[in-house]
Amino acid sequence: MAEDVAARLAEVVGAAHLLSGDAVPEDYAHDEELTGEPRRPGYVAKPATAEEVAGLLRVATEHGVPVTARGSGTGLSGAARPRPDGLLVSFERMNAVLEVDTGNHVAVVQPGVTLSELDARTAEAGLQYTVYPGELSASVGGNVGSNAGGMRAVRYGVTRHNVLGLQAVLGTGEIIRTGGRITKISSGYDLTQLIIGSEGTLALVTEVIVRLHPRLAHGATVLAPFTDLDRVLAAVPRIVASGLAPTILEYIDNLTMAAITHTAQLALGVPDEVREASQSYLVVGMENRDADRLHADIEVLGELLGELGAADVYVLDGGSARKLIEAREKAFWTAKAAGADDVIDVVVPRSAMAQFLGAARAAGHRREAGVIGCGHAGDGNVHLAIFCKDPDVRRELLHEIFAEGVELGGAISGEHGIGRAKREHFLELEDPVKIELMRRIKRSFDPVGILNPGVLLT
Amino acid sequence: MAEDVAARLAEVVGAAHLLSGDAVPEDYAHDEELTGEPRRPGYVAKPATAEEVAGLLRVATEHGVPVTARGSGTGLSGAARPRPDGLLVSFERMNAVLEVDTGNHVAVVQPGVTLSELDARTAEAGLQYTVYPGELSASVGGNVGSNAGGMRAVRYGVTRHNVLGLQAVLGTGEIIRTGGRITKISSGYDLTQLIIGSEGTLALVTEVIVRLHPRLAHGATVLAPFTDLDRVLAAVPRIVASGLAPTILEYIDNLTMAAITHTAQLALGVPDEVREASQSYLVVGMENRDADRLHADIEVLGELLGELGAADVYVLDGGSARKLIEAREKAFWTAKAAGADDVIDVVVPRSAMAQFLGAARAAGHRREAGVIGCGHAGDGNVHLAIFCKDPDVRRELLHEIFAEGVELGGAISGEHGIGRAKREHFLELEDPVKIELMRRIKRSFDPVGILNPGVLLT
Repeated sequence: MAEDVAARLAEVVGAAHLLSGDAVPEDYAHDEELTGEPRRPGYVAKPATAEEVAGLLRVATEHGVPVTARGSGTGLSGAARPRPDGLLVSFERMNAVLEVDTGNHVAVVQPGVTLSELDARTAEAGLQYTVYPGELSASVGGNVGSNAGGMRAVRYGVTRHNVLGLQAVLGTGEIIRTGGRITKISSGYDLTQLIIGSEGTLALVTEVIVRLHPRLAHGATVLAPFTDLDRVLAAVPRIVASGLAPTILEYIDNLTMAAITHTAQLALGVPDEVREASQSYLVVGMENRDADRLHADIEVLGELLGELGAADVYVLDGGSARKLIEAREKAFWTAKAAGADDVIDVVVPRSAMAQFLGAARAAGHRREAGVIGCGHAGDGNVHLAIFCKDPDVRRELLHEIFAEGVELGGAISGEHGIGRAKREHFLELEDPVKIELMRRIKRSFDPVGILNPGVLLT
Repeated sequence: MAEDVAARLAEVVGAAHLLSGDAVPEDYAHDEELTGEPRRPGYVAKPATAEEVAGLLRVATEHGVPVTARGSGTGLSGAARPRPDGLLVSFERMNAVLEVDTGNHVAVVQPGVTLSELDARTAEAGLQYTVYPGELSASVGGNVGSNAGGMRAVRYGVTRHNVLGLQAVLGTGEIIRTGGRITKISSGYDLTQLIIGSEGTLALVTEVIVRLHPRLAHGATVLAPFTDLDRVLAAVPRIVASGLAPTILEYIDNLTMAAITHTAQLALGVPDEVREASQSYLVVGMENRDADRLHADIEVLGELLGELGAADVYVLDGGSARKLIEAREKAFWTAKAAGADDVIDVVVPRSAMAQFLGAARAAGHRREAGVIGCGHAGDGNVHLAIFCKDPDVRRELLHEIFAEGVELGGAISGEHGIGRAKREHFLELEDPVKIELMRRIKRSFDPVGILNPGVLLT
């Protein structure tokens, strides 16, 4: 049976592009989810075209083989962690930037393209794809699956706002095209938006039309320490309302700041006495097409931060700024290296961040667990590293934190997705009417249920 | 039977809020679709709460009564034109701005709130809801149904980009809440985005969380005549790429400009010889929080427009600028008064606008039909007034124009929706695989099929 399936799959992609059994390397057994056990998939197929993907799904349907899509495997929720009896479809060969279209300000890319590759290609045209989820080896297809966000979302939005169209293969093996090189459309249900963030449970994406923005020539990063977190969070809506339109608006708690500056061997010029008195930091990124305007804006921002209670304001020079942003982007790796047992990214209304963080820390404190972090302050997206060895206690702690986020009008995840890691919590906390509705929608795309079972809903 | 249904519906909303038979005023028989025959609905119910809407839908399900939602009745595609045997749910009593939340930069509103009311309320807080589809008596609920756009979409996006959450009642009578006061979320399928633009066929929206932006203090409008349309359209990507970030980027053809300036009795200061030599105009709106920057940007824009072949550049003073924008917003009424037989709003990739317009005009020319217009040049959204009396010839002409738009990678409608008016064309031109998928999705929300039959899909 397994041999038969392998042979059928090899017919579709060619024997050189189908691995099975012991020939499957360990790397395909996991993504970057911290808590899931690696599970080597039964088969790994590396298609080159949408038609091959459709062929794979037809074979999988016929044999009832669960299918998991994989881009670069950098996801944090286990949505690309395959089933032992399943087929992993790796998009590593579908990794071309097909076109950078300067007339329409879009790029057309295959799902396996990495963000660093896309960044290099769009830079040549003075344009940029503005979704920077930190890990630049991530693939555009993975971005689409998780609706990835990142630090620039406060100005440019998340993946959802920057993907205009898709080619995708339904669970039935049918190939569709959605959207286009257009930013508006009112002609039927928005299938593009429905597939974005669906974590491989509705369709396999085989082409992506992304929106590009002008790449602004001048940038600066401002660092402001605050004696307490409440002030940092109170400052955020004021900065947004100022019209200064920062590209980055992050808070970092003091423990996380100490960890990431230590790991990156980063000297930011903050005197010891200020650092010791600071519980939290705000990092503000600014960009402008004009250098004079940038400097004028930084001055306005500096004054505003002073009024809002910053202990001091540091305009970082190019080298330190880049290093700080990179170190912040690598906060996940720092947390992992420090022995974090899980990382989560609850999103709450911006104005509820202080209350949420207080509750999350108290929940940790009651269980002698560490709950520290940083986050996209402009978006209310709180990234927390959880230090709590006992899986049962941790499960209870996470449930309490997620429930608090949902109670405050937020959601379990702002950009990492639910995946396998948080499915149980999602099914417990989400409205059962919506869960049933989502299941019916899933069946519309994937009637047999072969697409990523165990992720999100089922 | 009809009396029984009326009695049951009256039980839900109160007898004072239920009209039936001859008591239904003519106004409820239509929206602003030009081609559909008015059809008085069997019943008009005016609910006050989501629970009452749910009650209405349960009665409708039980008796197999088709249900159409209506906001202000300003739609252009007949999506709010009811069925003679049907129930029209009018949201005129659910017209409150429930909250303007300055901490999270959102407003929470009922669907019957008009854009002018919302604009007044957000102005008090120095904020704005940036969707301006021209008709300010339009309702937010209607905006959501059609995914309304308007002139400011080139900078701020369309309804889809400015609605963060919904309360909605499914065809089953179940009430759900989607999204929230948050701009990013990756926790299940995006039901908010799925309902937006679904033209009342998936759910009835009973509450909307809209995103607000800072209201910028300084604005200006620049008018540039060009000798030919191709140059106007070639200028557009260059202006977008400049980083000047216009809030408005419209083209207006000479016939439409003559009609709207005549109707509005508007003197723009364009000398006769320039006007006579101009085939097309570009209108660029600029805004800034800082007056000096605005003036500097206008200077840069003026130079750029000169390089791009504008015959001249006029910076309109406050009064003329406002009148021109208002007159452009009322282009639909001008076209209607001029005897247009239909108005459409095909969207194509920006770079394909010239080719599309050439083809549309040629198709009109071959049939001795008039095809004139204006459009959201920054978005590729072409508004055309069609002058062609014979319904069969007009049908054929529209089909050819829509097919050309789809062929060029666009869609039948950018912001008006498909409604009843263009359903036949939509079903002919859209991929049958997607039509079937959308029908399955519709059944997920509305298993019995009571929601707006005859609109969009069915």
